[in-house]
Amino acid sequence: MRAIKDSVHDYIEVDGVAEALLDTPPVQRLRHIKQLSTVRLVYPSANHTRFEHSLGVYHLADRALSHLDVTGARADTVRAAAFLHDVGHGPYGHQTEGIIQRRLDRHHDEVEDLLASGAVGDVLRDHGLDPQRVAAMVEGEGRLGQLVAGELDVDRMDYLVRDAHHTGVPYGTIDHGRLLRALAFRDGDLVLDEGNVQTAESVLVGRALMNATVYRHHVSRITGSMLERASTRLLDESNLDTETFARMTDGQLLGALDDHDATTEAARRIAERDLYKRAVWTERAAVPDDVVAADHDEIQEFERTIAATAGVSPEHVLVDNPGQPSMPESSVRVAVNGDVRPLHEQSPLVKGMQEAQRVQWRFGVYAPDDCAPEVAAAAERELGLAGVGDVNA
Amino acid sequence: MRAIKDSVHDYIEVDGVAEALLDTPPVQRLRHIKQLSTVRLVYPSANHTRFEHSLGVYHLADRALSHLDVTGARADTVRAAAFLHDVGHGPYGHQTEGIIQRRLDRHHDEVEDLLASGAVGDVLRDHGLDPQRVAAMVEGEGRLGQLVAGELDVDRMDYLVRDAHHTGVPYGTIDHGRLLRALAFRDGDLVLDEGNVQTAESVLVGRALMNATVYRHHVSRITGSMLERASTRLLDESNLDTETFARMTDGQLLGALDDHDATTEAARRIAERDLYKRAVWTERAAVPDDVVAADHDEIQEFERTIAATAGVSPEHVLVDNPGQPSMPESSVRVAVNGDVRPLHEQSPLVKGMQEAQRVQWRFGVYAPDDCAPEVAAAAERELGLAGVGDVNA
Amino acid sequence: MRAIKDSVHDYIEVDGVAEALLDTPPVQRLRHIKQLSTVRLVYPSANHTRFEHSLGVYHLADRALSHLDVTGARADTVRAAAFLHDVGHGPYGHQTEGIIQRRLDRHHDEVEDLLASGAVGDVLRDHGLDPQRVAAMVEGEGRLGQLVAGELDVDRMDYLVRDAHHTGVPYGTIDHGRLLRALAFRDGDLVLDEGNVQTAESVLVGRALMNATVYRHHVSRITGSMLERASTRLLDESNLDTETFARMTDGQLLGALDDHDATTEAARRIAERDLYKRAVWTERAAVPDDVVAADHDEIQEFERTIAATAGVSPEHVLVDNPGQPSMPESSVRVAVNGDVRPLHEQSPLVKGMQEAQRVQWRFGVYAPDDCAPEVAAAAERELGLAGVGDVNA
Amino acid sequence: MRAIKDSVHDYIEVDGVAEALLDTPPVQRLRHIKQLSTVRLVYPSANHTRFEHSLGVYHLADRALSHLDVTGARADTVRAAAFLHDVGHGPYGHQTEGIIQRRLDRHHDEVEDLLASGAVGDVLRDHGLDPQRVAAMVEGEGRLGQLVAGELDVDRMDYLVRDAHHTGVPYGTIDHGRLLRALAFRDGDLVLDEGNVQTAESVLVGRALMNATVYRHHVSRITGSMLERASTRLLDESNLDTETFARMTDGQLLGALDDHDATTEAARRIAERDLYKRAVWTERAAVPDDVVAADHDEIQEFERTIAATAGVSPEHVLVDNPGQPSMPESSVRVAVNGDVRPLHEQSPLVKGMQEAQRVQWRFGVYAPDDCAPEVAAAAERELGLAGVGDVNA
Repeated sequence: MRAIKDSVHDYIEVDGVAEALLDTPPVQRLRHIKQLSTVRLVYPSANHTRFEHSLGVYHLADRALSHLDVTGARADTVRAAAFLHDVGHGPYGHQTEGIIQRRLDRHHDEVEDLLASGAVGDVLRDHGLDPQRVAAMVEGEGRLGQLVAGELDVDRMDYLVRDAHHTGVPYGTIDHGRLLRALAFRDGDLVLDEGNVQTAESVLVGRALMNATVYRHHVSRITGSMLERASTRLLDESNLDTETFARMTDGQLLGALDDHDATTEAARRIAERDLYKRAVWTERAAVPDDVVAADHDEIQEFERTIAATAGVSPEHVLVDNPGQPSMPESSVRVAVNGDVRPLHEQSPLVKGMQEAQRVQWRFGVYAPDDCAPEVAAAAERELGLAGVGDVNA
Repeated sequence: MRAIKDSVHDYIEVDGVAEALLDTPPVQRLRHIKQLSTVRLVYPSANHTRFEHSLGVYHLADRALSHLDVTGARADTVRAAAFLHDVGHGPYGHQTEGIIQRRLDRHHDEVEDLLASGAVGDVLRDHGLDPQRVAAMVEGEGRLGQLVAGELDVDRMDYLVRDAHHTGVPYGTIDHGRLLRALAFRDGDLVLDEGNVQTAESVLVGRALMNATVYRHHVSRITGSMLERASTRLLDESNLDTETFARMTDGQLLGALDDHDATTEAARRIAERDLYKRAVWTERAAVPDDVVAADHDEIQEFERTIAATAGVSPEHVLVDNPGQPSMPESSVRVAVNGDVRPLHEQSPLVKGMQEAQRVQWRFGVYAPDDCAPEVAAAAERELGLAGVGDVNA
Repeated sequence: MRAIKDSVHDYIEVDGVAEALLDTPPVQRLRHIKQLSTVRLVYPSANHTRFEHSLGVYHLADRALSHLDVTGARADTVRAAAFLHDVGHGPYGHQTEGIIQRRLDRHHDEVEDLLASGAVGDVLRDHGLDPQRVAAMVEGEGRLGQLVAGELDVDRMDYLVRDAHHTGVPYGTIDHGRLLRALAFRDGDLVLDEGNVQTAESVLVGRALMNATVYRHHVSRITGSMLERASTRLLDESNLDTETFARMTDGQLLGALDDHDATTEAARRIAERDLYKRAVWTERAAVPDDVVAADHDEIQEFERTIAATAGVSPEHVLVDNPGQPSMPESSVRVAVNGDVRPLHEQSPLVKGMQEAQRVQWRFGVYAPDDCAPEVAAAAERELGLAGVGDVNA
Repeated sequence: MRAIKDSVHDYIEVDGVAEALLDTPPVQRLRHIKQLSTVRLVYPSANHTRFEHSLGVYHLADRALSHLDVTGARADTVRAAAFLHDVGHGPYGHQTEGIIQRRLDRHHDEVEDLLASGAVGDVLRDHGLDPQRVAAMVEGEGRLGQLVAGELDVDRMDYLVRDAHHTGVPYGTIDHGRLLRALAFRDGDLVLDEGNVQTAESVLVGRALMNATVYRHHVSRITGSMLERASTRLLDESNLDTETFARMTDGQLLGALDDHDATTEAARRIAERDLYKRAVWTERAAVPDDVVAADHDEIQEFERTIAATAGVSPEHVLVDNPGQPSMPESSVRVAVNGDVRPLHEQSPLVKGMQEAQRVQWRFGVYAPDDCAPEVAAAAERELGLAGVGDVNA
């Protein structure tokens, strides 16, 4: 047994299969993937990694299993899945998952191959676990899979608190102790026990406020767009294959962008925080429906058209169409007076929150500082944006 | 200048008029009034007092004034008002304010007499301040009074964070640093500057969640009802006058209840946490409108009738009709794209929150454990309650 | 099982005998005894009570037992002793223990009678525990008693961290997680396992720094002296018996002092923080050995003599002779390269710390502000103090 | 003015010259140098960088200047020096400073050239500051330079607290608020004002405990030795010049080691935490004086000899001779009864602490797990080590 000191949960006891997994390369690689990728450019203390987050998720899973009185191999499978839930992430986590998805048709939580092969596969089998079952749980399958990836998962409980600790933004500081002790199974579903409507609301609200102030901060979104564009170019123009790309660390990707001539400037800009600015930053009502509905190829086409109209180089226009925010917490099932109801049926707050997220939604077009005005004008015309909102950087 | 170590704000520098006020008896008395009165019976660490809270409010006022660039005597008036804003509280704070209001027709923030007389009046005048103007500010009058008592006041900023620190419930941990730097004056009104809709929402949400889990916890409400009933009896039956009562400390009131024969049992119950239980605990829909609308005298009549029907002593029935929750944060004015709008016009969250509070509203009837069933049945019949909700203590 | 939210340890699960003890009057009484008695006059946030401290000690004992793999009735006895270890304290804790000791010849950890009688005795016996064995453990007897009251006890682990949290002074923030996992039994003794010399040093150092800045702060010592003098007078002059006195709460004692004519002024001074000042505050070298060695009666004689010489009323002179600081942590046994050694044999820090405490030692004589100079001169002459040190209040 | 949220100091207001320096490449580079280099392999949350530390040091310098009432260009020079004090660090900070020192004969705080040239030089001159004077202050020259680099510098105040926050080890949590308000000038020297012996002791003790448990943890020392050896080889064998090396980031160095054939295995070991183990780990008494006194070349010679004797490849032996721990805090000047004395004259704790550090001193020889026994035996013989201490990994 190893006890690892964590800045959020104090000592985390790592035991059994998790202890054996600790030293495998795919797990150690997570030390080099930042939990909040580009957010550190807004909140400089946010340098925590998916490694310590994975330890935290493992720890909370372990406590939840003990509370729910689940033991044996089933519990070990959950523990392994909790610890491994993020190994499928590419460099810079969510910022490259679109690229990987499009090119490999694989989401970051599809980790069956990763878990079956190499050191991880060996460890799982040595401990009598089936890599396929662990992988299924990472995707949230089964009754216990809900604990790993579901509306009430321990992933969320850890990252909200950890991101709050490291950014200094308190909104994510949920009461995970209370959440864990509220967990119960009812008719095969994971629910929050009687008296916990506010417990559920607090998670919903915590994540929504972190979304607005941290996760979707425009500086992070701009950097993410720059990174995605440069990565695409690197993959298009170099002989780097996507599988290799998907297994890089943050530092390796930045190094590769720096080594490739066409992306070295982007690498420098990201490393030195010399970022594009918002040429357009506008509310939902100002954006035509077909623009919002545009897919990746159409977005690229928009970028080329705007660049041509503005008379700037195509790589100087980035269109960022964020899609609709999801709110999985609204489906959390809560016991109320003996009934089990989804939170959105019980709490009028859910609807307010959903509407609030719609109000906060922003569509962005980014460009280097010196050509932002031309890009703004071109974007407004080409996309049919209505009276582009005020941009206060 | 004195620097006082505070567990929430670290060092608080107390200077000028505030330093002179520190040693006056009405301010020192606040060391003996707990900030959360009976909440400590649910959250045992919540023993903090209105004294350190007053220091915190003074500190935040001072920082807000510096941010807003307000100086001179106007600023000193605000600082004094912030520091003195709670001196009007009776023993156990909000738990006795109904009694004092009914008997003296005076709210706890009407402190004109208190501030003009004695050591406090001397200090204020010695520092060139007008006690009447300080008192007006405690009531929230004037442009700067909004800072002391308004939708965006520093009182709220301190108590949310302090109550979170001392209860261990994280929901109140708002970002007061951000709030302070977002404050601005527009057309004479205190508003939150551009880009702070979530800042305002976070306060709204923080207070609502603290309401549900801390401030309106049923154990605290039961104890408050017991305390109010016993205090009423003490005032009715002894020669204690209300003015003296209103200036007692928590400990003095408990001592007086203990010394008076008819209330000694109540004092023991409160001291030893041997509390009444919920005979009725029910949602808004189950309570007839006229019951909800009943005034203090009618409530007392209900209690007598229920006791008679149940065949128990009248002091064994406590009816707790909480009134509608207020939500002053919904009127906070926020700058959005150059406009100033009240939060409820900008944020759909406000409506959701208001409805959520309505859903959380509970009407209670409390009685000693051994006669709770009889009291429940009698209350249901006499008040016409529809299918009383499940009570899980 | 009840889970109680604590501001230091988050949720504390209270179970079995501890849950049944929760509602007994001697335990509930601890809600009314402040952990740091008069320290709140220096650190205003320090209003925490021996009730939540007792919960914390219980919690740490429970974790230690689980780490040491102790179960069954022996473990229950430890848990009960941990939870009850402070029920013997008089009002204002350590500030009145000298009085109680002298009059009843009983230390606060001699609780055999208290534990055998009343509700506590019933609960213990109902759970198959022997009150006498629990009481012995409160005094630190036996192998497991060391965990409750010894050099490595959980009492210390809780109060250092709790006092740091509530005062805001960080020095007490020891790593109790590390301490708990370092505990081991060797040849029947509780020791710290291999690799934990610094763990032990950190407790030693943490307590020494808290001593200097918090526990022995002169304002707290002055108030304590005033309280002891007034309590002595109350017991001498009223019909209050010492047993009743010893079972009072902080608030009841303050109320009793206020009600008794001769001590009402002292009660007012303590309540309003209108304290005596340091007439003398001097280092060890300046105080003759026989003064340092004086017992309680001799000290009282000193006070009378100084008062007479100074021409002031006897109650205006308080002599505070603090005795030598103890340093139980220096005897902590630590495993080093297979040996078990007391910390002071292994760590040269212990000697430095002991000398540092000697350097910090101060002898005080206190008096009302307006007669402090006369009292200082008289004390210097009567006690033969050599060049009294500089007093900067 | 920019307000940057920091997880340690909350909002840091960055203004004037510091705001202009923010966006210069040498400052942004610090985002890619971890504050605790290889410590993250022991404490996984310790991923904070010299960038946020530099912001913190700037912030504390700013507060200290305001407390000391220093304004104008002198204050700006201090602020710039505080913010820039770490720009001279090579990749992995202290872990490569030996290499850089030996090859360039330059310590990391010799930054005159760096500050005079490029964007940093431009910014300094634009704000009317002399880069040379700023550089001198980074080296601690002058009365105010003591604030930036001296026994009482703000560097130490920030890193102790920040490292505690990010490792989770509480020992570094000093009271920087108290330290700042204790600063005073006496006869041109920066001292701690009257009544602050414990304040000084607490820093001394905090750093010593962090040394033992964090900064000099053997896992971090092993990794540092591996990194130094690999970097030396990279510089010896590739065409990388030392100036370029010295300006790399952590990630760039790891990438370069990975790209170079002879060091790719070391890079993999560091990245995947597949570290050498302790073959020897022994106390001062066991190491002959001439071994302790050996310089870098002699150490290399030892390594070659041990490898030959053990029959292993030379790169499989790392000798780590840590030198004597310094204790600059012992020279802190403290005002005591009107005198100014160095702490070691006033506090007997200093001597105890120095001896404690001597007791904790360890000499290490590291090797891959599978050849550790042979290396241990060879080292013992070749270096004349007396009965090598117990190694418990």
